[in-house]
Amino acid sequence: MEMDNLLASIDLGSNSFRLSVGRIVQHEGITQIYSIDRLKETVRLAAGLNEHNVLSEEAIQRAVNVLQRFGERIHDFPATRVRAVATNTFRVAKNIDELLPRAENALGFPIEVISGQEEARLVFSGVAHELPPSKEGRLVVDIGGGSTEFIIGKGLEPKLMQSLHMGCVSYTKAYFPSGKVTAQAFEKAELAASKELEVISKAYRKMGWEQAFGSSGTAKALVAVLQDSGFSDKGITLEGMLKLKKVLIQHGSANTPELRGLKVDRMEVLPAGLAIMLAIFRTLKIERMYQGEGALRVGVLYDMLGRHEASDKRDETVKLFIRRYHIDTKQAQRVKAFALGLFDSINANNKEDMRRVLGWAADLHEIGLSISQVSYHKHTAYVLENADMPGFSRDDQRRLATLALLHQGRLNKAQIQHLSMDKWQAILCLRLSVLFLRKRQPPKVELQLNTNRQQHISLKIDKRWLETHPLTRYSLDLESKEWESVGFEFSIEEF
Amino acid sequence: MEMDNLLASIDLGSNSFRLSVGRIVQHEGITQIYSIDRLKETVRLAAGLNEHNVLSEEAIQRAVNVLQRFGERIHDFPATRVRAVATNTFRVAKNIDELLPRAENALGFPIEVISGQEEARLVFSGVAHELPPSKEGRLVVDIGGGSTEFIIGKGLEPKLMQSLHMGCVSYTKAYFPSGKVTAQAFEKAELAASKELEVISKAYRKMGWEQAFGSSGTAKALVAVLQDSGFSDKGITLEGMLKLKKVLIQHGSANTPELRGLKVDRMEVLPAGLAIMLAIFRTLKIERMYQGEGALRVGVLYDMLGRHEASDKRDETVKLFIRRYHIDTKQAQRVKAFALGLFDSINANNKEDMRRVLGWAADLHEIGLSISQVSYHKHTAYVLENADMPGFSRDDQRRLATLALLHQGRLNKAQIQHLSMDKWQAILCLRLSVLFLRKRQPPKVELQLNTNRQQHISLKIDKRWLETHPLTRYSLDLESKEWESVGFEFSIEEF
Repeated sequence: MEMDNLLASIDLGSNSFRLSVGRIVQHEGITQIYSIDRLKETVRLAAGLNEHNVLSEEAIQRAVNVLQRFGERIHDFPATRVRAVATNTFRVAKNIDELLPRAENALGFPIEVISGQEEARLVFSGVAHELPPSKEGRLVVDIGGGSTEFIIGKGLEPKLMQSLHMGCVSYTKAYFPSGKVTAQAFEKAELAASKELEVISKAYRKMGWEQAFGSSGTAKALVAVLQDSGFSDKGITLEGMLKLKKVLIQHGSANTPELRGLKVDRMEVLPAGLAIMLAIFRTLKIERMYQGEGALRVGVLYDMLGRHEASDKRDETVKLFIRRYHIDTKQAQRVKAFALGLFDSINANNKEDMRRVLGWAADLHEIGLSISQVSYHKHTAYVLENADMPGFSRDDQRRLATLALLHQGRLNKAQIQHLSMDKWQAILCLRLSVLFLRKRQPPKVELQLNTNRQQHISLKIDKRWLETHPLTRYSLDLESKEWESVGFEFSIEEF
Repeated sequence: MEMDNLLASIDLGSNSFRLSVGRIVQHEGITQIYSIDRLKETVRLAAGLNEHNVLSEEAIQRAVNVLQRFGERIHDFPATRVRAVATNTFRVAKNIDELLPRAENALGFPIEVISGQEEARLVFSGVAHELPPSKEGRLVVDIGGGSTEFIIGKGLEPKLMQSLHMGCVSYTKAYFPSGKVTAQAFEKAELAASKELEVISKAYRKMGWEQAFGSSGTAKALVAVLQDSGFSDKGITLEGMLKLKKVLIQHGSANTPELRGLKVDRMEVLPAGLAIMLAIFRTLKIERMYQGEGALRVGVLYDMLGRHEASDKRDETVKLFIRRYHIDTKQAQRVKAFALGLFDSINANNKEDMRRVLGWAADLHEIGLSISQVSYHKHTAYVLENADMPGFSRDDQRRLATLALLHQGRLNKAQIQHLSMDKWQAILCLRLSVLFLRKRQPPKVELQLNTNRQQHISLKIDKRWLETHPLTRYSLDLESKEWESVGFEFSIEEF
């Protein structure tokens, strides 16, 4: 089997970590991914968060151990064939700067922390790809360890996505801490979940759906217990869950032979998962929920496939943002072409990844004008860092925000720490592009940019052109000082 | 003369402070303002900024002395008849927290720091009201001490507004520091101004205009010098300015009998003002500029008139933002009605000002959803603090942003210092309104809110309703704890 046909996704959830290896299969013009290997380990990462959202050393160590094992399995995969995504616990952990490098080091591949919206999009993609095609509206609910995603969509297209801050591990810790299951604990947990759901209930019920699917371990466990224990004939029902709840309260835990089909590693988090599901059924008036397969890990695989086949979701998102923020598309195109031209001329190492980020940053650098012209680069950075951007990881968004923040004005900013050389190069290309295109007309000038020497930028520019453009010369002098303020030498040579 | 017919505006510019008293006159259905008194003092506030933008004690003292004199003149005016606005130096001064209270104390009235866009809007309004009506497109340029505003408009309607960070006082300090006027200094100053202008030139030249007006002291002085010295037959021309520049360089200063019509207090800042105007003429290809009267101080008077006549610019801006950010208008109206109802029930002192801010905050509290649902209240606060909002002062915007930031989530935030009691009351009403309307349906419930006792909030609520709404009871319990975290007692009584 050729490596070229393989893809690997790693889902670092708040309850469990999963590794999936898929094989790309072309069949009658349709591309599909067949799962060829799966690993799953229960980590209960969310349980390691203290009340200040600091993740304990013990929990980090649990994660590192699992990731080392995963890393061994995919050791010989090329980086472009692996995507690792991390969800809620990584989103909220205050000590992420300690956690992330250790996790990446253990896995041997970069890990992307994705937003709740992005998680929802990928979950729906995963579930939709595993279900038979249908024109019916589908609701997918994914109760994770730390967050729960809700998606309504048709076919492969999500229409409504939300991620709420509740999960079976975090709720176990908050409402069933000692493992004791009581009616009072259920009431509190259900109320808390209902409060979270209040925000989305109206919009979801208004849009409606024909079939509901549960895609997570919680849903899978509930289906198994309800069917095997005879509480439901098929899937999850409110009636069946109420029977299950009664049994759990009677026995004070899920550890009773009366319940069948329940795996040992689910026992601890089942009551919390049930409480959340009960609130979901009541709030959204769900009658029956079926089990959906696939979820995040499969969604990630299909997304990678898209990136390899040049239908990258991120390009769609950038197009959408250009419209939403009424960006001057001509200027964006001019800046992009100029910046990429410079980048190609100095970047011999073929940093395709940074090149794409530079292109998007050029497309979107004027978003902030929709808020105010004053400090618009800061507003652009704020939006790019905080907006829901389908297809983009948090790290993608942060890189875009950094380029936007530094594309004009001061380079020496307190909040910017160490940047890699290719990031500095991208910033340089974007700044020069904006500088030369400030009049919103393409300049007819020859430039040669060189950054081969350590911490040294050399710009060669046509002497006669510069003589007739004193304003550009003035701006370049200021630019040179700006780079000196962050430790670069910046020389301008005329030829 | 009745006080009811009088309005006073104070313009705290970076070069001079101006007090204007106007009388409202109704004539054949048209309302106008006749100026009945003016005071002007040259303060050179911008010259007191050091390289870190900290305003010197000496400059603050100069400002305070002038404001005490102004304060004496308008001592017996009711607060609703006075509006004081401060511009660029107040915008950039890092020690604004020291400066502003001392300035307000000296004047005896609150001072609003306004944005460059807002300044531009008011300048245009002032100039347009003093000019004869015309259907021609007009460009108004207002070179101040620290910033320069550019407005293109027709009639009373501005179409394009920008404020650039350059002014005759700040440029004197940067390029003619020792009072010495040389060709090199002119070149540097003109280049710096041209660089600022680059950003706006294309859009302004594209929109175009028929007549150009200069509204500031710099324009007035240039018109006087050029005409009286015989360098121009009427208004300001490029040719006339080049003659003036030559004389200035020849003599090394503006202090020469060859120049006529120049007031002594203009001599120091004339070269910098001229350099900026030269760059403006060249970049925007202006042929001739006439003198415009009125400017900021008159614009402020007419704006006050609007507020008294219920055509408040701020209401228009809020309507515009509701459309721009696709706000769910029905929910905004529900939240607003509920919040204002509560506010009226607890606020016996008739705080009309805070009531309006609360209304606008309710209208706009969901702006942040356009960025992301996660932490949307923070995004709302960011936009409200940074956006160009015609009619709103910076302080208005900051109050809106504070209400938005605290309308849900944690009350105990590091960046929020001491808040006044009426601000807490507004926050309370907005929070409860959002809480009771979270399902986006009006609740049928009777409430009595009471905040008469110091640091004590008491909410009386229908017992039977609460019994059938356990989720609201749960949310209210959480809300009560939130208020305790900021030092309030919050009791819920059922009746």
